[in-house]
Amino acid sequence: MSSLKGEVLDIVRRARAASFEVARLSTAVKNRALLAMADGLIQGSELLKEANSLDIEAARRKDLSKAMIDRLTLSDKVIAGMARGLREVVELPDPVGEVTGIWKRPNGLRVGRMRIPIGVIGIIYESRPNVTADAAGLCLKSGNAVILRGGSEAINSNMAIAGVIVRACESSGVPATAVQVVPTVEREAVLEMLKLEEYIDLIIPRGGEGLIRFVVENSKIPVIKHYKGVCHVFVDESAGLEMAQRICLNAKVQRPGVCNAMETLLVHRDAAARFLPPMYQRFKEAGVELRGCPRTVDILKDIKKASEEDWGAEYLDLILSVRVVDGLEEAISHIEKYGSLHTESIVTEDYTNAQRFINEVNSSTVLVNASTRFSDGYQLGLGAEIGISTTKIHAFGPMGLEELTTRKFIIYGEGQIRE
Amino acid sequence: MSSLKGEVLDIVRRARAASFEVARLSTAVKNRALLAMADGLIQGSELLKEANSLDIEAARRKDLSKAMIDRLTLSDKVIAGMARGLREVVELPDPVGEVTGIWKRPNGLRVGRMRIPIGVIGIIYESRPNVTADAAGLCLKSGNAVILRGGSEAINSNMAIAGVIVRACESSGVPATAVQVVPTVEREAVLEMLKLEEYIDLIIPRGGEGLIRFVVENSKIPVIKHYKGVCHVFVDESAGLEMAQRICLNAKVQRPGVCNAMETLLVHRDAAARFLPPMYQRFKEAGVELRGCPRTVDILKDIKKASEEDWGAEYLDLILSVRVVDGLEEAISHIEKYGSLHTESIVTEDYTNAQRFINEVNSSTVLVNASTRFSDGYQLGLGAEIGISTTKIHAFGPMGLEELTTRKFIIYGEGQIRE
Repeated sequence: MSSLKGEVLDIVRRARAASFEVARLSTAVKNRALLAMADGLIQGSELLKEANSLDIEAARRKDLSKAMIDRLTLSDKVIAGMARGLREVVELPDPVGEVTGIWKRPNGLRVGRMRIPIGVIGIIYESRPNVTADAAGLCLKSGNAVILRGGSEAINSNMAIAGVIVRACESSGVPATAVQVVPTVEREAVLEMLKLEEYIDLIIPRGGEGLIRFVVENSKIPVIKHYKGVCHVFVDESAGLEMAQRICLNAKVQRPGVCNAMETLLVHRDAAARFLPPMYQRFKEAGVELRGCPRTVDILKDIKKASEEDWGAEYLDLILSVRVVDGLEEAISHIEKYGSLHTESIVTEDYTNAQRFINEVNSSTVLVNASTRFSDGYQLGLGAEIGISTTKIHAFGPMGLEELTTRKFIIYGEGQIRE
Repeated sequence: MSSLKGEVLDIVRRARAASFEVARLSTAVKNRALLAMADGLIQGSELLKEANSLDIEAARRKDLSKAMIDRLTLSDKVIAGMARGLREVVELPDPVGEVTGIWKRPNGLRVGRMRIPIGVIGIIYESRPNVTADAAGLCLKSGNAVILRGGSEAINSNMAIAGVIVRACESSGVPATAVQVVPTVEREAVLEMLKLEEYIDLIIPRGGEGLIRFVVENSKIPVIKHYKGVCHVFVDESAGLEMAQRICLNAKVQRPGVCNAMETLLVHRDAAARFLPPMYQRFKEAGVELRGCPRTVDILKDIKKASEEDWGAEYLDLILSVRVVDGLEEAISHIEKYGSLHTESIVTEDYTNAQRFINEVNSSTVLVNASTRFSDGYQLGLGAEIGISTTKIHAFGPMGLEELTTRKFIIYGEGQIRE
């Protein structure tokens, strides 16, 4: 066995062993560790920034983009944000042990379902070192052991954050192996992890589509992920035009680089002529480039024609494809054909169309008269977000603490046997 | 593209297209189709038995075991069972569209979660042709399109059952492509299916450990499965000995060939001397062979010594490994080390130990004072069972209709945008 293989196996086995202990920790002990982590990050911020500067120097030598270096940087603000995030997790209810109903069977058995941790979770991510603290906090609060594998470009930052986390665990009665960072930059280490289904229960990849596809291709362990967010807003015939403009502008420009931003606007043909020109004006002022279907181009004249590729594109930028549709049916078929199961919104004053959109569009988040930007764990009231799933299995949409648990059946008997 | 590859791709694409329609079918239409399937099976029983006889002849030529031929046989009784199963599914509540709570956010958004079908489900199974009807019924009721891939040994039976199902769909307003059987015996067809994650949302393999491992190794699509059931009963010091004997006997001998039968008996050291000899007597009368740890052998003398392999063995037969443990802690560690996350039971009169066992043993089904044989969708009141999961993701334990759905977020707004 190569030393890398052995090293990964050791980490993963330690996580499995720790997972049994972590699952039984009291809420008080877990919260104490989370607070100690938050304090440790603030107290250790100079050391964290020093470690981070090594990563940033290396990134500059490798000529990484400014955006990438931004994401990599641990400023005082980012460190304070990590600490605040951990303190917020302390305030969230502990999902472990919750019993979601007990029913009685004809033979007297009382059957219920109890939330338990998933066990060992592997998080594979890129760039942002703050994921190290965020993910560690959520996994610990939900009673899971976690193995963190950040990008090679952030290895020094991640190891420094991990040091703070481990010391906080040790001082609070949490096994030091509850949170482990894979201390190597070799991609082989990820491949090794993804084979060890006997020890790891779930993999959550966070990052670009390339990383996520690599993980899905190579994993024997269940993976929860989303590749991309091609989110739609459908402006119905009956839409209030001011509300529709406000929602569309917000969905596109409030933060265009994220997965819940609108990428395609669908407009009812009977609303198009009065809605599109003033909307176009507002988009132009916000610097948004439009790419339209033939009917859109007929109305707006000077915009670019959309190609077939535009309908499936996640621009993550101030670009928007626009299509005029004959009505709700066509809007829904367009979403079924080109959507990514992420987030879709209808703007309408029509009761029946609102109901049909909510019932028939089976993306992970479906809204009526609200911006797609609300598709987010905090905005929806989950109190946290470990990621967003467009996989329909286990969790669909933003994932909070509850989605880091599973439910076992518990049965109270008085000697029942099966006849 | 090979013709096999093309054929599988066609089936899978048709399933994806059908899935949108199936998701929107009314409960009434789905129930009508289920009843038409049940009637069709009874009316077509002669044709089904004819098709089945081809499979049985082929099995005899290949010298398959009697047990295998039994499982393969479509008798009138098996056909009546399939029809009855479908009629029972009619009676179950339709999970699609159920909203599990709506909460209000500070900005006035009303956020809820609605159950929706998973989409396209692939079932890969062996031998028993009745799975064809059972799985088709449960997938249809839960609004999913299904692709059924039975074993090559049952191809004629499965195709005949599929014919009945498709005619029932057509006559009831359900797309004929909602239920499709892969009409080829080549294993390559399974490999092709398992690559098509773009079209299939979930794979459920049912059969022996070999088949299931093959599916997990090769699938890019999420798989819900259980490899095996190594179920434990722990007889605590305080256990009522008559109840303990009754439960242990039932758990081992009522149906030894199934996954929820007991495979290992753990006995508290302070109960061993009085519990084991009379229990051994009853096991002997039932033809059960015991294999014991050294302390068990000390008490029972003439039984075989258990080897390390015995502790992880799923005998599926009248064989039982027996270990004397120092107490609850050791029983739980034994289960953590050798268990399969399937089903474990404690027999005890001690409140604290019952609570600790329920809370700390994180197998998919955990019982107090009841037989492991209750770990079954019907017995637990789910009304149906598509399989049992020991994967902690999505579903853990027996899976009913609800486990064939997922939940999307639905959000009702009045023009909210994100600041």
